[in-house]
Amino acid sequence: MDFIKFKKNILCANNLPLINLAQKKSTPFYLYSADQIKKNIKVLKSQLKSSKPLICFAVKSNSNLQILKQICQLGLGADVVSLGELKLALKAGFKVNKIVFSGVGKTNDELKFAIKKNILSINAESKNEIMNINTIAKALNKKVNIGIRINPNIKAKTNKKITTGDKINKFGISINDLYDIFKNKHKLSNINIHLLSVHIGSQIKDIQPYKRVLNTISKILNTLRKDKHQIKFIDLGGGMGIPYFKNDTKFKISEFAREVKKFHSKHKVNIIFEIGRYLIGDTGVIISKVTYLKEAGDRYFVILDTGMNDMARSAIYEAFHEILPIIKRSKKFNKKIEFVGPICESSDTFGVYTKYSKLEEGDYICLTNCGAYGRTLSSNYNMRPLIEEVMINKNKLKTVRKRQSLNEII
Amino acid sequence: MDFIKFKKNILCANNLPLINLAQKKSTPFYLYSADQIKKNIKVLKSQLKSSKPLICFAVKSNSNLQILKQICQLGLGADVVSLGELKLALKAGFKVNKIVFSGVGKTNDELKFAIKKNILSINAESKNEIMNINTIAKALNKKVNIGIRINPNIKAKTNKKITTGDKINKFGISINDLYDIFKNKHKLSNINIHLLSVHIGSQIKDIQPYKRVLNTISKILNTLRKDKHQIKFIDLGGGMGIPYFKNDTKFKISEFAREVKKFHSKHKVNIIFEIGRYLIGDTGVIISKVTYLKEAGDRYFVILDTGMNDMARSAIYEAFHEILPIIKRSKKFNKKIEFVGPICESSDTFGVYTKYSKLEEGDYICLTNCGAYGRTLSSNYNMRPLIEEVMINKNKLKTVRKRQSLNEII
Repeated sequence: MDFIKFKKNILCANNLPLINLAQKKSTPFYLYSADQIKKNIKVLKSQLKSSKPLICFAVKSNSNLQILKQICQLGLGADVVSLGELKLALKAGFKVNKIVFSGVGKTNDELKFAIKKNILSINAESKNEIMNINTIAKALNKKVNIGIRINPNIKAKTNKKITTGDKINKFGISINDLYDIFKNKHKLSNINIHLLSVHIGSQIKDIQPYKRVLNTISKILNTLRKDKHQIKFIDLGGGMGIPYFKNDTKFKISEFAREVKKFHSKHKVNIIFEIGRYLIGDTGVIISKVTYLKEAGDRYFVILDTGMNDMARSAIYEAFHEILPIIKRSKKFNKKIEFVGPICESSDTFGVYTKYSKLEEGDYICLTNCGAYGRTLSSNYNMRPLIEEVMINKNKLKTVRKRQSLNEII
Repeated sequence: MDFIKFKKNILCANNLPLINLAQKKSTPFYLYSADQIKKNIKVLKSQLKSSKPLICFAVKSNSNLQILKQICQLGLGADVVSLGELKLALKAGFKVNKIVFSGVGKTNDELKFAIKKNILSINAESKNEIMNINTIAKALNKKVNIGIRINPNIKAKTNKKITTGDKINKFGISINDLYDIFKNKHKLSNINIHLLSVHIGSQIKDIQPYKRVLNTISKILNTLRKDKHQIKFIDLGGGMGIPYFKNDTKFKISEFAREVKKFHSKHKVNIIFEIGRYLIGDTGVIISKVTYLKEAGDRYFVILDTGMNDMARSAIYEAFHEILPIIKRSKKFNKKIEFVGPICESSDTFGVYTKYSKLEEGDYICLTNCGAYGRTLSSNYNMRPLIEEVMINKNKLKTVRKRQSLNEII
């Protein structure tokens, strides 16, 4: 979150005081930083460069077209999970040879479209999906490059709602079933299994599960090689966690990169990553206004004009996004405060703070790290229009998606 | 859920086999029953008639315009929580003298609109909101009827995300603060406090918390009466739970009605209810197709074409909505099965079953009790369009909201 910084108690995006921006706009709104996106991509590329990966951006984390265009121009590929995301990625300019398609429930329409477009890889998640792809490819008279997502049965030590590589999860194919598929490969005349993928979860801070994943894939590659099966790509997924508040732990990306490098040198395969949050999470914030202060017992409720309809992560995952005042006052609240939204649900809350800088009604705050799974999870709940998205580039501002009008949703 | 019934192993809506409907439509889609809505309203009116209440429909539970029109024509009022819901209720035909406006974060624009429209009651949730309403009313040269939502500090014994009447929740005003407001009423020249409201949560099955609420309000009314404060309306909120699966417990509405009747006879106030789920929950289902069957270890995953984007209650509240096969086969699955959606999240799951009727890929299922908090909480997550909503009336079908096109969201 480099682009948001205090300058003498005034919170700025790049060098622009957020108060100036907030007063010009209807709150709440998303504010993204083009500079931060550029920087994050540059840093990540450099950190991972020793294994020369194709980094695919996980479109589900942020599907703003202007952001996708920028990411595409900076050389990344796209990881999509639906026909909608695939079409959007194509519209944003991603080349088909840099698009991978994941997901447990790809329909025939989705598969047909992806096969016709010759995307880099359709990553299948079940035996039946593989057979289905083969049938569709045959009907289209095509030979299709596919990947197989492995379920490595590795616990990712994260929120249970975002663990995906445990055997109890719906994702991927067990290792035994994988070998079975390779044994019967000759029956699948219209597919070429050129990739193995794995994705063990989201918001993971510990690199141990990743080490275990590399180890597991190493063994699989050794076994497959003995049987003369060649794998060209290993898609290591993503899931690397980001800090959501001051002093929150960080993912040790350089340690991870060293492990991937070793793996890459040993196996001579092309590495793919599917990265969303780690690239885009800290590139966006929500600016919101304090509608009411409400004293109640041992606390103040600070009631914001943004809620779980705009940012659902707190309600769904009990995620904590640090909130910064746009103007830091020396005076402090004399009680603890709880930031809440206007939605009629108790889960519409953004966390409790002690000794917080005093706020007044009409003040603005900045809900940080909303770049990933912010707008993509938002809804019209309580008949509230989807909010505006603004991009800052150096000190120039641009609306990258308009606020929905009430008329559109009524 | 009377409108959905098996007839000799064929699931029917009214008398129409759902298989006929499913094959005609693109799945997934919502199916609502106009007959069930009519019946539920009739039954509820009769159950509550002894206290002659105004029953307001909680628009946040289902904001389909056609459904709102029907509910309005059947004589109910509307409970709204935003400018969007208020405008929608007016569009649906609700008369202003049957509309109450709740919510902790009403903005100035929302209040201005509501004041100008002379709705039945603006139910305020904090001292500051009351002062704000007074200021706005003064500027508009109006005297406004308002309600005050009390936080009775009563635990509702339900999911913590939907408890709303506990003192740790953001909702309502404490009883002490309420007396304070009445003491200083003379300073609020442009408002008339004619209503007290309370709403302790959602999906509550136990009537004990409601009894405690009535008791608390009784005491408050007695105290206020001593000080010559007259209250014309008591808004008892809603929150009555419904059964979400076979043999799930039911809310004892007749016992509750008796308590309300006693309260009503004693205090001679007009009773208002704000009811969503209890009226509309069982009037809608989602019809979805099985995309894949996936055998994995000790279970089959039954992968549906509907997910948490269409129906978020399972992901947010870990709610269980019973799933019925559209054709019940005598053959059973030989393992337990888990219904999951296509979304790339582990929380996108709809429950585990043992000994379930065998399903094949391409079969259809019926996700029950989706009438409340279904479409209103849905999103475009994973770039999936909002699904179609269909209404059955006797055996006539009508689309009451079209499926979003991909082009609309790309």
